[in-house]
Amino acid sequence: MNIAFVGLGTMGAPMAMSLLRAGYRLTVHNRTRDREEPLAAAGAARAASPAEAAQGAEVIITCVSDTPDVREVVLGERGVIHGARRGAVVVDMSTISPAATRAMAERLAKREVGLVDAPVSGGSEGAERGTLAIMAGGSEAEVETVRPVLLAMGSTVTHVGPVGAGQVTKAINQTIIAGVYQSVAEGVALGLGAGLNLERVLQAIAGGAAASWVLDNRARFMIDNSYPLGFRLRLHKKDLDIALAEAAELGVSMPVAEMVSRVEEELIATGHGEKDVSALAIAVRRAAGMD
Amino acid sequence: MNIAFVGLGTMGAPMAMSLLRAGYRLTVHNRTRDREEPLAAAGAARAASPAEAAQGAEVIITCVSDTPDVREVVLGERGVIHGARRGAVVVDMSTISPAATRAMAERLAKREVGLVDAPVSGGSEGAERGTLAIMAGGSEAEVETVRPVLLAMGSTVTHVGPVGAGQVTKAINQTIIAGVYQSVAEGVALGLGAGLNLERVLQAIAGGAAASWVLDNRARFMIDNSYPLGFRLRLHKKDLDIALAEAAELGVSMPVAEMVSRVEEELIATGHGEKDVSALAIAVRRAAGMD
Repeated sequence: MNIAFVGLGTMGAPMAMSLLRAGYRLTVHNRTRDREEPLAAAGAARAASPAEAAQGAEVIITCVSDTPDVREVVLGERGVIHGARRGAVVVDMSTISPAATRAMAERLAKREVGLVDAPVSGGSEGAERGTLAIMAGGSEAEVETVRPVLLAMGSTVTHVGPVGAGQVTKAINQTIIAGVYQSVAEGVALGLGAGLNLERVLQAIAGGAAASWVLDNRARFMIDNSYPLGFRLRLHKKDLDIALAEAAELGVSMPVAEMVSRVEEELIATGHGEKDVSALAIAVRRAAGMD
Repeated sequence: MNIAFVGLGTMGAPMAMSLLRAGYRLTVHNRTRDREEPLAAAGAARAASPAEAAQGAEVIITCVSDTPDVREVVLGERGVIHGARRGAVVVDMSTISPAATRAMAERLAKREVGLVDAPVSGGSEGAERGTLAIMAGGSEAEVETVRPVLLAMGSTVTHVGPVGAGQVTKAINQTIIAGVYQSVAEGVALGLGAGLNLERVLQAIAGGAAASWVLDNRARFMIDNSYPLGFRLRLHKKDLDIALAEAAELGVSMPVAEMVSRVEEELIATGHGEKDVSALAIAVRRAAGMD
């Protein structure tokens, strides 16, 4: 199977490498062309544009930063749509707007090109190890066609519904973690304020109803007031705002997610956007006069 | 060892029963006296007041509803303080104010009676099975004295710090779960609003950074809009307000916990206080016009 891969960033580059390791014939393109070199050295062909990469590919993967970037590489002047053959499937693994995803699917359908939205969770570590969790939206047939390809990059592929459903699922994921991070930050601040040994506190509550991935893996960052990546706060804010826009569209109010988005905005404005999301604790500590 | 047990409610009764099963000599008292009968049938002595129960006991356990109740059974006219011998240790397993706990410890210390605060998590199910997680605050010596007694009622006993630290730890626990429940409710509402198959969504996100006990065990209640106990929303509100009072005392701001407390207040006012905490989803569904 011929695969095109557009977008060789922190996530895309190791994902493309996983496909090469799995034996797929790969053509890669990245806006900053020299990022194609390590993939070419590993056996990938290079293309001068998304359109050129898409030529002859059965599956065309895009993995870029945000909604406008996906629109550009898919529908733009030199976009995938101008090279893709009939029957090809575009798999967008970026995290973008569900509404924009559905609109893009309609445009592609007119050329008889399919779209599967397949955002991931698991971060750059999951991308390196090929252990991403992949949430796929699209028709049953198209998702089944691309499933083996996705499984070369991730541990699980869950077909969650029609086109756009993958993005909504990712939005739900980012909504939930927003509140979990913030609540763990509040709990940690209460413990610090009371002068407790937080190691003991975590040990006491880790097995009960307060248990979470964030408590297990990120509370320590908050205690130490040090926030190594992880997942950038600035990117979580981008994802959360996609979730809030979708929620507003649907008439769903998400007050905690809104509050966390505002806190993240302040943290970005004060220079903390490149830290891990757990840096939400900086705002709680600051409000308590701890730093 | 002679143990007194005051407060035979939903939690206290099965906890006292665990002590009998473990072979301790037990004297019980409850304000509504007929609740003593099943314990008496299982071998406990009965006492007409907390003071009388405390006579001759090395360890005096209290397990009642709220701060004023603990004050009454410990320091009141017929309270434990009037029966306890020097060297006895009072173990308060209620969830109450850390500040009130510290004040009570000072009063008891004047009579050479110790205090260990040992609130629990794990609910009535944990109390029945003897699998509670117990967070103990007090002196090293006193916590070690009562540890075997506590282990007859729970799976883990974590000594988290000096008197009051157990209550602060419980407050941290309740603060964290507040935000987790609310965020899962917001995520579920977004998924319902978008018409997704929520079973699939949960499957897709359960293994990643959004993972939590609440997501695993309570998201389904929110999807079904049915909230069997569990842990009463009204009691969580009581605990959360203890946490907020302690935080205010310490100058720690907990905006998500405050917001959830307000939502819970509304839900209690509209008749949902006896439902499980996951009924927080009712407010999110209502705001989205789902019900």
